[in-house]
Amino acid sequence: MADVFDKCRAWTRVRDAVTAGIMPYGHVIEDLVDGTEAVVGGRKVVMLGSNDYLGLSADPRVKAAAQEAIDRYGTSCSGSRLLNGTRPVHGEFEQRIADFLGREAAVVTATGFQTNLAISTLLGHGDVVLTDRGNHASLVDAARLGFAEHRRYRHNDVEHLAWLLDTSGADRGKVIVTDSTFSIEGDLCDLPAIVRLAREHDARVVLDCAHDLGVLGAHGRGAPEHFGLESQVDLVTGTFSKAFGSTGGLIAGSREVVDFIRHLGHPAVYSAAMPPAAVAAADMALQIIEQEPERRTRLLDIAERLHNGLRALGFDTGRSTTHVVPVLIGDETLCLRFWTALLDAGVFTNAFVTPALPADKTMIRASVLATHTDTQLDQALEAFARVGRELGVIPATPPRTYEPVMTARPVTA
Amino acid sequence: MADVFDKCRAWTRVRDAVTAGIMPYGHVIEDLVDGTEAVVGGRKVVMLGSNDYLGLSADPRVKAAAQEAIDRYGTSCSGSRLLNGTRPVHGEFEQRIADFLGREAAVVTATGFQTNLAISTLLGHGDVVLTDRGNHASLVDAARLGFAEHRRYRHNDVEHLAWLLDTSGADRGKVIVTDSTFSIEGDLCDLPAIVRLAREHDARVVLDCAHDLGVLGAHGRGAPEHFGLESQVDLVTGTFSKAFGSTGGLIAGSREVVDFIRHLGHPAVYSAAMPPAAVAAADMALQIIEQEPERRTRLLDIAERLHNGLRALGFDTGRSTTHVVPVLIGDETLCLRFWTALLDAGVFTNAFVTPALPADKTMIRASVLATHTDTQLDQALEAFARVGRELGVIPATPPRTYEPVMTARPVTA
Repeated sequence: MADVFDKCRAWTRVRDAVTAGIMPYGHVIEDLVDGTEAVVGGRKVVMLGSNDYLGLSADPRVKAAAQEAIDRYGTSCSGSRLLNGTRPVHGEFEQRIADFLGREAAVVTATGFQTNLAISTLLGHGDVVLTDRGNHASLVDAARLGFAEHRRYRHNDVEHLAWLLDTSGADRGKVIVTDSTFSIEGDLCDLPAIVRLAREHDARVVLDCAHDLGVLGAHGRGAPEHFGLESQVDLVTGTFSKAFGSTGGLIAGSREVVDFIRHLGHPAVYSAAMPPAAVAAADMALQIIEQEPERRTRLLDIAERLHNGLRALGFDTGRSTTHVVPVLIGDETLCLRFWTALLDAGVFTNAFVTPALPADKTMIRASVLATHTDTQLDQALEAFARVGRELGVIPATPPRTYEPVMTARPVTA
Repeated sequence: MADVFDKCRAWTRVRDAVTAGIMPYGHVIEDLVDGTEAVVGGRKVVMLGSNDYLGLSADPRVKAAAQEAIDRYGTSCSGSRLLNGTRPVHGEFEQRIADFLGREAAVVTATGFQTNLAISTLLGHGDVVLTDRGNHASLVDAARLGFAEHRRYRHNDVEHLAWLLDTSGADRGKVIVTDSTFSIEGDLCDLPAIVRLAREHDARVVLDCAHDLGVLGAHGRGAPEHFGLESQVDLVTGTFSKAFGSTGGLIAGSREVVDFIRHLGHPAVYSAAMPPAAVAAADMALQIIEQEPERRTRLLDIAERLHNGLRALGFDTGRSTTHVVPVLIGDETLCLRFWTALLDAGVFTNAFVTPALPADKTMIRASVLATHTDTQLDQALEAFARVGRELGVIPATPPRTYEPVMTARPVTA
């Protein structure tokens, strides 16, 4: 007799990985010291696996703001924004984040995942949504929930995108939806080409700036500011669980579009409001992001050092020019062994294997924080060198030359 | 030229409602006194529109627990559970909630919406998912994201469900997914009939106990306990944003199934972990739910008084036997006017109109809290009486008899 739970019984991958001693997922972070040093399995390790890019989740000002919001508003809104969950902090913060981004309006929800899902609200019958194959899972699911025709282009392949636009029918509503910084590979989308194609084909552009909001651009307004193309991007989505040290997400754009999503998007309408503590934390983080640009500078400096330190050793960090630093490994089992050996050597990273990536194109992701010290970075590079040589990922002697990376720092005039 | 944003421009409903002065959505709750009295538009009103059923979002113990978690863990996990977002509180709380529910395992995510979406992970090609047409939007979207054939039965119509099961093919994996307490009408699903049909057809049962977890059953274990059918329900989902005074959600069941969802469900894998403050608040709420059964008793007592007070006036509260009290209105414009007049008369409720309900079957939802006083309830009933008569929803003189409601209280031996 068939049973919908059969698939759970048949799925032994985690049990197998645990048995083999190469299980990189779900480890308990027992403690975090300044966000940069983690205690895992009772041992202190350098934390290169967090998205707390500016180190704000441990910032005393951010913590105090969240605690004060609990004093004032309690621990929950106990309902959705539209019915009963809108408190004064929501509208105030939405206006501030919209102003920060130079947009008319913004709506926040309890998670970045849900704000991305809410993009589905715009995808009607007869429309075409064009998405990068490297997009985050939440955008994939948004396209699946929408009613538009879903056409996917090869990762960062603007010629493929152009061909799909050419063949999508001139009279149909079209929207290009892409990550601006891809979450695994850390590379930036080709925004100049994308907005040019959008203009040529009367398509809209929706950009998920999850990893670069608060980080890229002279003012931290993310990839659109970095590229000098803010006016060409119709809708920006983002998360507060990375640079903003909180949890939640936002969509910013014209009031008309934002209100449409606010009133009709399932993840906005049928889910409890972003908790006041999370709003207050993100709001304080926004102030710090505006007032302390040196955090962004430090982050991209140290990211550049990590990229080039790894490259000097013979590692391949792909096409990333950001603080999300991929280390290409290849074979899946090798990747899991590499992750485990790195942890033993005192560095916590993230492993990306199937189904996120093909089994022969797996990678380790290292993400730096503005609060990492140079010493921590040196320790991490030493561990990478040792493990890389032991497992044959890099040659015993470093290559004579390497292609250096320059991270996506603002050009100062 | 078609534009995906045309639909936003064409959508004037909110603007029209605001112009007409009958806009029930998105009002700012300026203040909440003990959770039971709201300040809206500068005026104090009785709050009959919140899901804070046990009054725990304002409980000093719950607030302190959340604030301590921020001290200890910061304001965010800065990543997903599998990669870097698992802190000691997550596993501890998951074990406690699983023990509370008498289940092997549980997984929590940042919102109840997302836990429900994660049910999609179980819906494979060739499977059949059978859902109640009155299900919450998150379950509708879960079915749409899954790969199973989606068959919907008329609201609480077990004969229709039986027919769909009969015609679904004996050799296919089948799962019935339903709300236990329906979120608008407040009626309970016919769980005895559903589990009987499931047994006969080798189908699994997934129950979303969002509104009754912590509320129904002698120990607050929700609808399955209320019906004495816990062992017949395969998977329970729930939210922490109602009785638990927090934000987040859970799935509880066998370890095999829970782990499958934990490792493969997009909303679990690709979204930031439930924040430690939210975990700590829900965990403290769980302790209070276990230790203070009088809150549940009070809630269902006062709900019964509201039901019967409304019925004595001539209102129709449908088939609800719970603390979610619908007041059937009918015509959509009348419903919006009724909601507005009630607010003017000092009572905040929720209005449900299209697209949630047909335009001629709209309703007001009043939800009581354990912390409401008898005086507040009397004030609310007085306002309902006055507005109901003014707008012709009830007769000028009360009916001579009415069918009383008994709420779903535990039977004491």
